[in-house]
Amino acid sequence: MPDKLRVIPLGGLGEIGKNMMVFELGEDLIIVDAGLMFPEEEMLGVDLVIPDVSYVAERIGKLRGILITHGHEDHTGALPYVLPQLQLPNGKLPPIYCTRLTHGLISVKLQEHKLAKRADLRMVQMGDTVRLGKFSAEFVRVTHSIPDSAGIMIRTPLGNVFHTGDFKLDHTPIMGEPTDLLRIAELGREGVVLLLSDSTYAETPGYTPSEYVVGDALDQIMAHSPGRVIIATFASLISRVQQIIDASYANGRHVFVTGRSMLDNAKMALKQKYLDSPEDILAPLEKMRGLPPEQITIITTGAQGEPTSALVRMANRDHRHIEIQEGDTVVLSSSAIPGNELLINRTIDNLYRLGARVLYSRIANVHVRGHAAQEELKLMLSLVQPKHFVPVHGEYRHLIMHAGLARAMGVEEEKTFVLEDGDILEIDRKEAKVVGRVPADYVYVDGLAVGVDRVVLRDRRHLATDGVIVAIVTIDKHTGKPIGRPDVVSRGFIEAEMSDSLMERAGDVILESLGGAAHVAGRGDFNTRVHDSLSRFLYDETRRRPMVLPLSVEV
Amino acid sequence: MPDKLRVIPLGGLGEIGKNMMVFELGEDLIIVDAGLMFPEEEMLGVDLVIPDVSYVAERIGKLRGILITHGHEDHTGALPYVLPQLQLPNGKLPPIYCTRLTHGLISVKLQEHKLAKRADLRMVQMGDTVRLGKFSAEFVRVTHSIPDSAGIMIRTPLGNVFHTGDFKLDHTPIMGEPTDLLRIAELGREGVVLLLSDSTYAETPGYTPSEYVVGDALDQIMAHSPGRVIIATFASLISRVQQIIDASYANGRHVFVTGRSMLDNAKMALKQKYLDSPEDILAPLEKMRGLPPEQITIITTGAQGEPTSALVRMANRDHRHIEIQEGDTVVLSSSAIPGNELLINRTIDNLYRLGARVLYSRIANVHVRGHAAQEELKLMLSLVQPKHFVPVHGEYRHLIMHAGLARAMGVEEEKTFVLEDGDILEIDRKEAKVVGRVPADYVYVDGLAVGVDRVVLRDRRHLATDGVIVAIVTIDKHTGKPIGRPDVVSRGFIEAEMSDSLMERAGDVILESLGGAAHVAGRGDFNTRVHDSLSRFLYDETRRRPMVLPLSVEV
Repeated sequence: MPDKLRVIPLGGLGEIGKNMMVFELGEDLIIVDAGLMFPEEEMLGVDLVIPDVSYVAERIGKLRGILITHGHEDHTGALPYVLPQLQLPNGKLPPIYCTRLTHGLISVKLQEHKLAKRADLRMVQMGDTVRLGKFSAEFVRVTHSIPDSAGIMIRTPLGNVFHTGDFKLDHTPIMGEPTDLLRIAELGREGVVLLLSDSTYAETPGYTPSEYVVGDALDQIMAHSPGRVIIATFASLISRVQQIIDASYANGRHVFVTGRSMLDNAKMALKQKYLDSPEDILAPLEKMRGLPPEQITIITTGAQGEPTSALVRMANRDHRHIEIQEGDTVVLSSSAIPGNELLINRTIDNLYRLGARVLYSRIANVHVRGHAAQEELKLMLSLVQPKHFVPVHGEYRHLIMHAGLARAMGVEEEKTFVLEDGDILEIDRKEAKVVGRVPADYVYVDGLAVGVDRVVLRDRRHLATDGVIVAIVTIDKHTGKPIGRPDVVSRGFIEAEMSDSLMERAGDVILESLGGAAHVAGRGDFNTRVHDSLSRFLYDETRRRPMVLPLSVEV
Repeated sequence: MPDKLRVIPLGGLGEIGKNMMVFELGEDLIIVDAGLMFPEEEMLGVDLVIPDVSYVAERIGKLRGILITHGHEDHTGALPYVLPQLQLPNGKLPPIYCTRLTHGLISVKLQEHKLAKRADLRMVQMGDTVRLGKFSAEFVRVTHSIPDSAGIMIRTPLGNVFHTGDFKLDHTPIMGEPTDLLRIAELGREGVVLLLSDSTYAETPGYTPSEYVVGDALDQIMAHSPGRVIIATFASLISRVQQIIDASYANGRHVFVTGRSMLDNAKMALKQKYLDSPEDILAPLEKMRGLPPEQITIITTGAQGEPTSALVRMANRDHRHIEIQEGDTVVLSSSAIPGNELLINRTIDNLYRLGARVLYSRIANVHVRGHAAQEELKLMLSLVQPKHFVPVHGEYRHLIMHAGLARAMGVEEEKTFVLEDGDILEIDRKEAKVVGRVPADYVYVDGLAVGVDRVVLRDRRHLATDGVIVAIVTIDKHTGKPIGRPDVVSRGFIEAEMSDSLMERAGDVILESLGGAAHVAGRGDFNTRVHDSLSRFLYDETRRRPMVLPLSVEV
């Protein structure tokens, strides 16, 4: 048996999001998760970021299936974009395996992208094992901030691999049962050659508190708030929504829901019986009229300060039905995803300006994290007793810290691998080692295009900083000399009142730059002369460097 | 005595930064602080933000002086930009009063802007009182993260106003003496009609720890790190630099400094004897050669992940003299200014990638804040016993929380005012109330221009998202009909390979849009037709909305 097991992260190692892991053994290949990432600040105009699946596409005949650990966007969101790239040689799309709620969420997503009919989406029960060529995969129950989350035990002829998915060890979860520590311990006893474990909160000491503490805080808020309670959380955090419903009805409040993704998810979760409510929470907001404010709870989106979300529209007095008023209590039941701090702070400030009281995780117990902290990560290592260890899901420092925890737990340093997207880890019966790299760059989705190149983004950054100047020169095609005055137009460069005289003088600069030669030597020469002289003139005058576009019209 | 005292914040209330407060009584007006703010994400291409001083400029004959509490940019940085707007009727610039280190820092800044000779910068001692028309101002020592920080007691015929400046209550500061609680208590006994107090950390319970705890942590790091220690902090945090020097020499390390602002500040602080070192810390970095790594400390800039800073250049392998290597310990002795989290995280990750160990405030005691937390704010209120209270310096929620603390301390609700920039608070012998507003918008500095208008920024945002398309149509001036094919050029819109055929078809769309009428009815009609048809076509094809610039050349 000369084969080696290849483990290749295509996403999620070195960044938070777009999780994807490839396992390849001989003629078989499987993928775990296919997530998206939201663009960072400098990725101007990009809608979202997905993994590069070209390594798999080049070996498409080997692909046996895609396993999804849970229903969050950073594990499922790339499916509509990568599935078309992963058509099997027989013309079909690869089977996707997942548990029930995950199945529901992915179905909605595939319908939106008109892929529901072509895709081969298969539901598994927790504990089921799926055969995928030489691989088999067992779904193991873990706790996370969405129900039906799974870790996956991948059995291979070269040994067992346990992939935790996103997890924490809440012993008293609000919904469903806790992480199946007994089964994980059995797997550890069976022997695990490689553990891949969630590193998102490896920086955080101690334990992540139980969802339970949030329930107590919500109960107090519902009981003691003098008016309406408006509470924003992640639409996928269905257990939190249930807690809000429970605390509301226990305190004589009726529950209303607003915000598109919250409504969609609540509808789906009610239908699939993940949510349970004594009354219809999907009633139109008009039904609030006539109810005293202290009998109203509104569940909504916008806990990350997303500009088009319902809560942000309320904070900007821009929501069609809900006007924030004195006496309202607004709760942000979430913590900030790094990068969103300013948007969240601005939303909180605007809500205060309208007279609301605002509660958020820095000042009240209204949220707990969905990921394991250091002590839980150690317990996982302790139960699984892996021979080799790869920290997954996290920015580089999280991986480093998690690797440090593993070494402290007795995993040998040379058997712990801090990988990044694209690294190939090869494991055989004797050892594991990094043997090379595959393409694993960010793939940008912008509008209908999958894959936006760097030049476009560089140009957008340039335009964003100092705007654009277009200089049109009419050229006599016989003499090669300019006719009349150049037309100079700018956008995003300088205010209108300063612009007129500056553009007038820019025209002189252009003519001067073209005047030196008897004949302008072709388009390249023209571009260089106009571009350079105009750039220099504008920088001297304004200390700004707009993009300069010289254009000539020959007549 | 019919006069009323007007208190008008022109900056710093509702945001962090660009602090400025105006006090006006009859024919006299004074300004406290003149700070800048760094631009937020959506202020594309803006270099910095300063307060709008038009209210003062319109009453320039009343201006008696500018008082500066301490030398940080958010209290001094607008001076070079607002001074030219504040020329007195006699042609001179208004006097600026400040303590010694602040004087040194402002001098450097005024020299850079070639204002040193014209400006009237005056040094005061802590405890001095300055007369300014009907106002007098006493400088009171407070602790902050820069030496020579002052609160200001402003005496007026209508009562005393105490402005804390930025402060905390470190009883064991590293440099200078602690906040002068005795003097503040005396002022409280003398009677304070209005307290203005720093709200920056009003969200934070408890006390801010002493700088002392950082000293202990640094000592441990210098003693136990196996190689070089490279430590980044704020260039103005001179007491921290002193702690680093002390801990280094105590553990047999030589200190080197790199990064322009760190070098400038260290040079100035050594000259003015705010810094003290057994050896020359300004020696060229070449002197490091030959020293064993465990005998080297490097102090540098970049603790906020600033893209052009020395530390970020090291993290990107882009520093001329220092290459990060395994065995290096890098310390970020700072906490994240909101909005900088991603840049800081990226810097930490890149340093880890190069093999360094990285210590930062989330995982080690390497920084304490410079501002008072809730218990200190209460102590201030308790000593000053103000009749009226205005929380200053902070985003809106900080002001709200600070107002809540004041009410809990017995300041009456109707005597606590949560103001925002531009609000006019009027105080007479009987009462205080908000009577109106003055202009207090953000003023943007971009290149040489002070004041960038909103249209320019809106255009930059549009350009940033989807780029620009320029369509040039040559028009026969006699027939009004297009000649030849339009020229269509794009930047930042779509990748080159997709662009060619799309631009070709865009040309057809333009001709079609102009073909309907026998004659295009003027430039407005032309613009509308080309703009609308092209925008619609491009959105249908790409789901992007670039800025469309239709241009016509008549021949």
